[in-house]
Amino acid sequence: VHVLFISEEDDPAAWGRELAARLPDLRFTVWPDAVDVSSVDAALCFSPPPGLLAALPNLRVVQSLAAGLDHLAGDRAPPPGVPVLPMADPGAPTLMAEYMLAAVMRHHRGLDALASAQAAGRWQPLPVRAACERRVGVLGLGRLGLAACTMLQSVGFQVTGWSRSVRDLPGLRTLHGPDGLDRLAGQSDILVCLLPLTPETAGILNARLFRLLPRGAFLVNAGRGGHLVEPDLLRALDSGELAGATLDVFTQEPIAPGHPFWRRADILITPHVAAFPRAETAADVVADALRTAAGRAACQQASLA
Amino acid sequence: VHVLFISEEDDPAAWGRELAARLPDLRFTVWPDAVDVSSVDAALCFSPPPGLLAALPNLRVVQSLAAGLDHLAGDRAPPPGVPVLPMADPGAPTLMAEYMLAAVMRHHRGLDALASAQAAGRWQPLPVRAACERRVGVLGLGRLGLAACTMLQSVGFQVTGWSRSVRDLPGLRTLHGPDGLDRLAGQSDILVCLLPLTPETAGILNARLFRLLPRGAFLVNAGRGGHLVEPDLLRALDSGELAGATLDVFTQEPIAPGHPFWRRADILITPHVAAFPRAETAADVVADALRTAAGRAACQQASLA
Repeated sequence: VHVLFISEEDDPAAWGRELAARLPDLRFTVWPDAVDVSSVDAALCFSPPPGLLAALPNLRVVQSLAAGLDHLAGDRAPPPGVPVLPMADPGAPTLMAEYMLAAVMRHHRGLDALASAQAAGRWQPLPVRAACERRVGVLGLGRLGLAACTMLQSVGFQVTGWSRSVRDLPGLRTLHGPDGLDRLAGQSDILVCLLPLTPETAGILNARLFRLLPRGAFLVNAGRGGHLVEPDLLRALDSGELAGATLDVFTQEPIAPGHPFWRRADILITPHVAAFPRAETAADVVADALRTAAGRAACQQASLA
Repeated sequence: VHVLFISEEDDPAAWGRELAARLPDLRFTVWPDAVDVSSVDAALCFSPPPGLLAALPNLRVVQSLAAGLDHLAGDRAPPPGVPVLPMADPGAPTLMAEYMLAAVMRHHRGLDALASAQAAGRWQPLPVRAACERRVGVLGLGRLGLAACTMLQSVGFQVTGWSRSVRDLPGLRTLHGPDGLDRLAGQSDILVCLLPLTPETAGILNARLFRLLPRGAFLVNAGRGGHLVEPDLLRALDSGELAGATLDVFTQEPIAPGHPFWRRADILITPHVAAFPRAETAADVVADALRTAAGRAACQQASLA
């Protein structure tokens, strides 16, 4: 199987090594190295250049390097009929849950405010409360959202999950739909977003929602940049509706040099590192997917012969 | 019972309210308000001025507002024979464990390095690993140290605990004594200190220990300021032996204005807020202690009459 690797975010050496150990007949080309486009069977990619996938005439499968598939929309899409597989790294839910724990604990214990006090040379003890006195709302109950809920519950937070349609999950308080979203906001001292980006969820983190949060709440977004209306966040922070935010995803990545987020002490920028797939933990499932696609291709060629 | 409250760190209003609800005959004076020293039965205090406790002729009991008693040593001590009770707030282990979780997760996910990159306007993804790939060493296996061990284990870290003398604790890997300390250091990506301050543990966080840590390790100290040789920490950070530190306690509190810690991006100062006793959770045990002391005093007066 001939795999074309296309990503400026992921490590081609690790992927090439881990896949070669599992696929004896692997051919692995890293874009933009020279490649005979007609020989490419599979693309392993994140945010490929517009038109590139569509120009691969014998593409059998696209393995996304991200769990979401929005980076393959529009003119980045493969030719019609080519299956696109989301990344399902079994290590990803753990990494995401740990990211959320780090971000939520930082807000919970006011480490951002303490760092600002330190920068100003001020010794300023802040009141402390326990996790069991803090309410966390988690938007999105997919694999990653559920992992975050479980982790945050396990250390004592009052967690409520939200999804667009009703979910019945043992041991987790849930809300759903538009009314549930408003109720969730009203009771979220810390609001976490792990939704997929769809037309229905784009811009869901906006001024209207921020006004419903308890005054001084915190926001953590590791869904997609498109969930957040960035100017609304700045206004909510400036007005005190929100006390701080941790953001892993942005409408444009990397963030442009002049972007106002860079200079804010009340926004922590993490550069899309919450939970990227690691070749070490994901290569088994990816190799299986490529093997299946290659087998299907061989089958089709045999039936054509 | 007449209680004299002496602390610049704790909230007298909360303590007065919670104790009054439990002790109908409470008289509660907040130092430095005027007080008839001969009428004081009990002191509820943190770091009282030198000589103050010794000048209370009818003092029956001293209830410390801290778990450690080093703030009552030397000329801050009560008259001989007056019992001194450590604070045993049942809420403290939870607060301390949550502080440690916040500090350890921050180092684990490199949030300090990401904040520095942000301040410099750099979009700089860092490699991520899972908690199960990170070794945390915890110095001190008292009530607070054990709570921290349990919390850190529960979210997946490889935790080893250390104490001066041997401890056998189900479910926790432990080391002890001087040899055990050196072994612990060699395998601690993050080293946490929750020891009591004694002549044997003073200065335990020093250049020799830092050289034994894996290069680029992190330090979290919420024991006492006297555990840390502060100039040794600065040298270990400058040389790269240590990558960062979170400090809740200091040799002098508040830290003096010119102290080098203030300006370090690789040291987070938290102003002794890891786990202070809260009247809401501690008042039951404190009220019991004061009631017992008052009963004993009444008893002695009856036998004298």
